[in-house]
Parts: sequence; C-alpha cells; structure tokens
Amino acid sequence: MRFWGWGDDAHAGEGLPPHAEELLAHELGLPPARPAARVRQIEDVRVPEATLSDAARSALAAAAPLRDDAIARVFHAAGKAYPDLVRLRSGEVEHAPDAIVFPRTHDEVRAVLTACAEHDIAVVPFGGGTSVVGGVEPLRGDKAAAITLDLNALNRLTDVDLRSLTITVEPGMKLPQLKTLLGLRGLTLGHYPQSFEYATVGGCVATRSAGQASTGYGRIDELVLGVTMAAPAGDVDLPALPASAAGPDLRELVVGSEGALGVITSTALRVAPAPRVRRYEGFAFESFARGTEGFRALEQAGAAPDIARLSDEEETRLQLALAGGGPKVKLAGAYLRARGVSRGAIAICGWEGREEQVERRRAQTVQLLKAAGAVPLGASPGRAWARGRYHGPYLRDDLLDRGVLVETLETATQWSNLHRLYDAVGAALRRALGRTLVMCHVSHLYPSGASLYFTFLAAARPGDELEQWRAAKTAASEAIVANGGTISHHHAVGRDHAPYLQAEASALGVAALRAVKDELDPAGIMNPGKLLPER
Amino acid sequence: MRFWGWGDDAHAGEGLPPHAEELLAHELGLPPARPAARVRQIEDVRVPEATLSDAARSALAAAAPLRDDAIARVFHAAGKAYPDLVRLRSGEVEHAPDAIVFPRTHDEVRAVLTACAEHDIAVVPFGGGTSVVGGVEPLRGDKAAAITLDLNALNRLTDVDLRSLTITVEPGMKLPQLKTLLGLRGLTLGHYPQSFEYATVGGCVATRSAGQASTGYGRIDELVLGVTMAAPAGDVDLPALPASAAGPDLRELVVGSEGALGVITSTALRVAPAPRVRRYEGFAFESFARGTEGFRALEQAGAAPDIARLSDEEETRLQLALAGGGPKVKLAGAYLRARGVSRGAIAICGWEGREEQVERRRAQTVQLLKAAGAVPLGASPGRAWARGRYHGPYLRDDLLDRGVLVETLETATQWSNLHRLYDAVGAALRRALGRTLVMCHVSHLYPSGASLYFTFLAAARPGDELEQWRAAKTAASEAIVANGGTISHHHAVGRDHAPYLQAEASALGVAALRAVKDELDPAGIMNPGKLLPER
Repeated sequence: MRFWGWGDDAHAGEGLPPHAEELLAHELGLPPARPAARVRQIEDVRVPEATLSDAARSALAAAAPLRDDAIARVFHAAGKAYPDLVRLRSGEVEHAPDAIVFPRTHDEVRAVLTACAEHDIAVVPFGGGTSVVGGVEPLRGDKAAAITLDLNALNRLTDVDLRSLTITVEPGMKLPQLKTLLGLRGLTLGHYPQSFEYATVGGCVATRSAGQASTGYGRIDELVLGVTMAAPAGDVDLPALPASAAGPDLRELVVGSEGALGVITSTALRVAPAPRVRRYEGFAFESFARGTEGFRALEQAGAAPDIARLSDEEETRLQLALAGGGPKVKLAGAYLRARGVSRGAIAICGWEGREEQVERRRAQTVQLLKAAGAVPLGASPGRAWARGRYHGPYLRDDLLDRGVLVETLETATQWSNLHRLYDAVGAALRRALGRTLVMCHVSHLYPSGASLYFTFLAAARPGDELEQWRAAKTAASEAIVANGGTISHHHAVGRDHAPYLQAEASALGVAALRAVKDELDPAGIMNPGKLLPER
Repeated sequence: MRFWGWGDDAHAGEGLPPHAEELLAHELGLPPARPAARVRQIEDVRVPEATLSDAARSALAAAAPLRDDAIARVFHAAGKAYPDLVRLRSGEVEHAPDAIVFPRTHDEVRAVLTACAEHDIAVVPFGGGTSVVGGVEPLRGDKAAAITLDLNALNRLTDVDLRSLTITVEPGMKLPQLKTLLGLRGLTLGHYPQSFEYATVGGCVATRSAGQASTGYGRIDELVLGVTMAAPAGDVDLPALPASAAGPDLRELVVGSEGALGVITSTALRVAPAPRVRRYEGFAFESFARGTEGFRALEQAGAAPDIARLSDEEETRLQLALAGGGPKVKLAGAYLRARGVSRGAIAICGWEGREEQVERRRAQTVQLLKAAGAVPLGASPGRAWARGRYHGPYLRDDLLDRGVLVETLETATQWSNLHRLYDAVGAALRRALGRTLVMCHVSHLYPSGASLYFTFLAAARPGDELEQWRAAKTAASEAIVANGGTISHHHAVGRDHAPYLQAEASALGVAALRAVKDELDPAGIMNPGKLLPER
C-alpha cells in the first residue's frame, strides 16, 4: 500500500479527469493547480527515535518475529484518515511504534502481551491499517513505549462447518483472500467494506464494521457466532452458538472492543451460499426525501435488496457531473430535468443469490420503488457503481494531490429522526468550512432506521490543513450527538470519536466499559487513548 | 394466578383425560391414583418471619407503595419451576421477601434502590413471576433482608413511533395488554413465549426470552433498540439506534442481565405490522433426523416460516396418543404406519403477514419440505397447536396432581452438533430418572443451528421430589455443557443455571461480568445468587 495514501498504484486509475478538476476548482474556489507537495520515499518520513529498552526488545523478539526498522515503523505509524495522509505526505508522523511484532499463533500473542505487561509497553493491534478514526495510532498513554501488534501472520482459515454454514478464521485473514478460499467451497461472508482490498477479519470484528451489502448479509456483529480474545489477564473464549439466553452476550463486548480490551485471535462467523447471480441497478427519485421514504417502505415491507444506496441531491449532481456516465445516467439527468427537477436523487439497488431468488426479490423491490415514485434506470448505473465500489480512497489521493480537503463521516438514526440529523450535520459542516461541497448517501437500511454517510470537500488551507479538518470534524460530531445520531455507524470510535462515546453510552455505561477494561487489562497496556474517553 | 400452579382456573381446561392418565400410569409405572396432597388456601402456606427493621420498612414505604402481608409474600416467594410448585403445594416456601414494593415511576425505582443500599437490603425484580430457573427467588445473599420489587405498576406504553416501527414501553407491561394496545395501531411485537398470558416486557428483556414465533419476528434481543436501566450506581441510558459501531454494544449487557445489574425501567423495541393472515399447518417426517435436515434446509435457504416446530419421535408418539387428534392427525399416524414407520416426527409451521406474502412464503416452505421428504398434514394439526400453545403449564398442574414429575429444559447448538447434544441430554435424563418419558422438539431456527426443548416425565418419588428433580436437572445440565450446548436458549440463567455459566462464558468472561456488576451495583444488592456463579 502507498505509505502516503491508499492502495496500489496499479489499481489507482488515471487520476481526476480534467472536467472534474475544472468543476471542483470552480465550485470550491481552488487556487490554480500547484505541484503536489509530498515526500516521495518512505525513507524520507521522519520518525521519532524508538524508546524501547534492550531488555524489552529482547523479550519481545523472543515472543514473536519483530521489526523496528524505519520503514516498518512508518508503515505502522498511522491509519488512513485525512489528517494521517496530510501528515505522511509532508514527511511527518505524529507517533510511531517503537517496534512491530508479528505473532503467528494465539500463544505468540499471549507471549507478546506478557512481555509488554512486564516491560510497561502499550500494545496497538493492527490488521489492514485502514482505520479512519485514529484506531491504529501508536499512542503510548502513560507507558514507557508502544509497539504495534501486526496480526497479518495469524491468518489461517481453521474450520469450515458446511452443515452449520459457519467458519472459524484467524484475525489477520484479509477479506479478498477469505473471499477466494470461501468461493472454492461455494460460500461467501458477504462482507464488503470500502476498505475490502486491505481489511482483515479481525479488524472488521474489532471495529464492528458494516459492508456495502450488509443490508442483505448483515453487519459483522450479526455474523459473529463465537470469538476468542487474548487479554492481558487471560483468554475470553466464547464458543459458536446460534443463540443463547445465558446472561448478557459477551460476544457483543468483544465485537467493537477496538483492541482496547485484548487481541481477537479467532472468530467463528456465519457464512452464506455464494451468490450465483448479482444484479445491480439504478433508480431515480425526485428528491432525497422521496427516496428515503421509498427505502423505508422497502425495508419495512421486508423487501429491501442486499445493497441499497441512495445519494442525496448534491451527491447525485456531482456524480452526474463528474462521471460523464453511460446513456442511462444521461437519461436520468434528462428524466429529472423533464419533470422540472433540477436536483434529483439516484439510488443503487443490488440483489445477490440464486437466479430465481434474485428475480423474485428484484420484482418485489422494483414494484415498491415504483409505487414510491422511483424511475428505473437499468443496469448501467449499477455497473458503474460496482466498478467503482472500492475506488473512493484512490480518488481521495487524487483530490489531496489537487489541494482538496476531503473527508467522510457517518452516523445512523431512527427513520423518524433521519432528516433532522441529515440537516444538522450538513449545516454544521457548511458552517465550519465555508465554501464546501457536502454530499450524503443512505447505504444501510434497518426496520427502525438507516445510516447516513457524508463526504465533504473544501479547498485545503495550506499549512493549516489539520486545524481546518479538526474544526469540521468537531462541528459534525457535535451535531451528531446533539441530534440523536450514533457517533459511528461503521467507522468505529478509535481516538477521534472517543470524546463523544459517553453521549450515547451514558456516563455509567462508560464506567461499566472501564470496569471491564480494568479486569481484562489491569495494567492498561491495550491500545491506550482509543475507544474510551480520557478520565 | 394460582399460587400453587399456573394460570386461572377458568382457563385450565378439564384436566388429564382418562385415556391419557391410563397411558401415563402404564408407561411411567404410576402408583394407583391417590388424592393430590396440596394446601388449599394461600393462607395455609408457611412463610418465614420478616426481618425488615422498622427504619428500613419506613424508608421503603416512603419510596414506593409497599405490602408485607403474608399473601403478597407467598405470591412473590417463588417462580414457576417444578420444585417451586412442589414446595408451594406442600405449604412450604424456601424463602419469602420481607416486603414487596410497587414503584410506579423510574424515580420511585431509584428511591427504592437508594433505600435498599442504605439499609443493606437485597432487591429482587419481579415481572410476571414466571421464571422456571429460580430467577425471582427472594435470596438475600449476605444482606440483612430481601425485598421483591414488583414492576407491574410501571407499565405504560410511553411512545409509538410509526415511521420507525419502534415503541417505548415500561417494564411492567404485560404481553397480552401490549398486544391489545399495539393491535389498535396495526402493530405487533410478535413475541409469544409460552408464559405469554403473564409475562411482562421487562421480564422478557431481562431474561433474553424467545417466543414461539421468534424464528420469524426475532428473539427479544433482536428487538431491543434502546433501554434504560436504574442501577444502584446510577442510570444506564442507551437511546434507540438502528445500528452502531460505537464500541461494544452495551444493550447486550443489559439484555439478559436478569436483575443482577439493575432494574430495566424502559425499553425501546422494534415492532412489525400486525399480520392480516395467520396459517399454521402440520407436516410429517419419517424421523426426527429427517425433520431436522428439512428444517436446516429451510432456514439456510431463507425460507423458514415464522413458527417452526418439530417434535421428535417420542413427543410425536405421545401427542398422537394423548391428543386423540383430528382426522389429519389420524391420517399422519396412518401415513407413518403405511410407510413402515412406527415413530415418525410431526412438524408445525406457521406463517404470518399479509395474505400474498403468506401465500408466497408458504409455497416456498412447502416445496422445500416436500423435497426433504415431508408429507403435508393440512391445517388441522396447526389449529390444534395454536389452541394449545399456552396450555403446557396448565397440563403440568394436572400432571403434578397425578403424582408425575414433569419438567422442561432447553438449549441450542450448531446444526452440526445438534444430534450429538440431543442424544447426550436424552441419555443423561434417562440415566438419572430410570423409568421416564423424554420428549424433545426443535422450535427456533437459525442459519447456524437450532434450539432443543426437552420435556421429561417420571413417577414422582413422594417426599423425595426435590432430590429426584435435582438429580435429573444436574445430569441434563452437565450433559449440555459437556456437549457444546448453551445452558439456556430462552429460560435464562437464574439460580439454577448459574453454576454452568462459566462453561460457555469462560472464567475471564464471568470476571468481566462481575466487574460490571461491582461498578453498577457496588453494594451487591441486586438479585443476589442469580446469573453469576458463587465466587
């Protein structure tokens, strides 16, 4: 992966097309194009001197393979949020791990934790390194040093139970590799976060992730049946069970624990038969408000597709303007204009499964969407979406090259509160950033509500990018908690959202989490500064 | 409710028919009929002297309406498990609360908790009082006294959000009353435990209950969107959210907390449109093994009905023998015999919803069941099941009258482990009880597994009923944990299952729960002796 951005150069496409650059320059008031100011070599990034004692380093190296060269330290120094990339491009990191260990077994993880507890070292679990909330930032808290515990070598598929449609997998397994291994057996996890190309199973479970098809296959928390976590105080070992009334569900304490309670070393997950057919299609609504009502009707009738995504008017406008698009997209524009709608809302629906299932479900969805005022746009917008489904982070690199602040954030709320929250977050971002483009889509449906995913762009203020970002992030976060949204629908808490957790967990809920942490991690070595707000 | 048994005399039916009594006497070796030895008046039940100090009583009476007469104390002295009924019938209780308080608001609950913490009094929350695992037993642990906190006066439906299909309801709301109130608005919770006639919403949430239609509508833990709990240390207040990635899900700590962490004072629940049509039908399989494979195929194809229940050969045989049954039930017997099958397995499937939905889903189910070897028996067995769906506990009273030990217990496991667990529990019960009838059904389907619900009968050993029961319960519980089952699929942990919790939660998981309890309930007044095993 590019140390200063996302992904592999070979997958990166051709950058921002000229007409897109013109449009953004015009709308955001970008200054004339200037060369991207970024360091070229990972060796050029300055990292703080490592503070690991020789004794500690020896103990760790005895526990698991270890690296502490500058390249490994830079690569594990940050996640992939806008401020991370801004820093890395300028050749800076805020923190770097003093070393990185690569345990290959549960027992090696245990040995690393023991060494860290003994030598007063903070432990930062690391999977794909794709956190956009500061989740893998190597903070040391009050510890003498901090190491990153890279789980990529603990990555086997250890069991496939075809009768129970359940697999057991180690945390470092990458999602694409798992897709391949399961595909050979006719199965799928059905989990496709935008970080799919790099994300690990353990990272998904630890951050309570959702994928693009989670409306159909379920969020990761709905797929976890059992889990093993190595905590400093011992193992939490929860067997795979379909359901239980044996007290509080401890699985739900481990899922979303973000490395702050221990290290997930194995997970039992529900899988599904691999789909034989996939259909992705576009629909146009007169407005975002009409579209959300249509989606609500779908979901509450039990007729939602597996992928359900609805762009607001601004996202629709920019997609139509930037994409060029196929004939059906042009048709959408024409249709909307013909109805006197200058700024309609485009939806993508996707169905996966056996052919007759897909046909039946699609027919149901289409019937209900038409009743809600949608116009079918056919498969072309669906194909365009599928082609670009993991492309957002590459595009972000291109935008950063061009001096654009670009960030995303997300929330969820009840249907009855959706537009209030949507309006409040949009207004907060516009207030904080001034000249800006704020786009939003709904991408995950539930009977009681939906997610809102915001993307915002502004001309970056050179030299002041981090403060500019912070102001926007703070404004949006405050608007979310003040208007009944969750601080995260699928990005997790990490460092950036920790101050807002209490708003939805309540003070005593946070105290309960702290009590669990004190029990499982009495020395407080696990991922300090993440998940829980400062005391 | 009968203090010595279940329900209202008016709903109790006519007792065991003569042919059923003959059959059981023959198969279990019952002694000749003898008059039922049970006390006739609630006043005849001996209760221990109350130990509440005058100061404590005054403080409690100032906090909420209070009763401490013998009738109220007997009524709150026990749940509805077999050993509870054996004791009550003999005019004994093991423990009785020193007083019962009836808070009407969250603030009155808070005031009660404050008074109890101050006066060293254990608090036992009480809804319908239908626990079959010792969950409402007024144990005092190391406290000076124990009171029951009866939640039946805190019972309002405080919000109906039609757009989000979400209601907010206080814990003392009875399920039948909620059904009526929601029905007026075209909604349903879809939650029908066998204790439906008496169960409260708060009791369902606190015990992580499942209803007869949970395969369709979801378990209570899938319906809880938000919850407020008054704990001795303060309130845990979790707003209704459709989904979140903001750390561990604290809702799942409150759901199933069984009064051991605090008192649930409000819950936001997902509801569904009330069904316009209900169809319940019977099917016959050649064997329980063929039937479970058929049910697995249904569920994993996404074609499960809302109600799915499959009796094993023994339960089928006894149902056919005891029920008399309609022409279709007779046909089932004839069909099975004609195929040389002396002991087939009968299934009940139920679909609820809009007519066209029900028809479509039913057609899918029937197609898959036929492919799995099932023979449709039509609506008559379905009607018989629906008529008797809440009748089990009444029948139990009749059996106790006749000197029969009768008890139920339940578990769940992955499909690949279902028959191993089924065999092990059945064998353990037969070993423990000698001459016995052990019946089982599958009643809740999940993609990865299913529940097993056992009913067992034996001739009670007069004067030794409790020891006889204990031996069977222990044998079954040990077989469950040794064979990968959960100690409870929907009855909860209570007192009886607490020693087995660690087998599936792990020692560190139990320690984490204890840490939460110490944080929320530092004086340890909440429902001592329940949920958590003794230290």
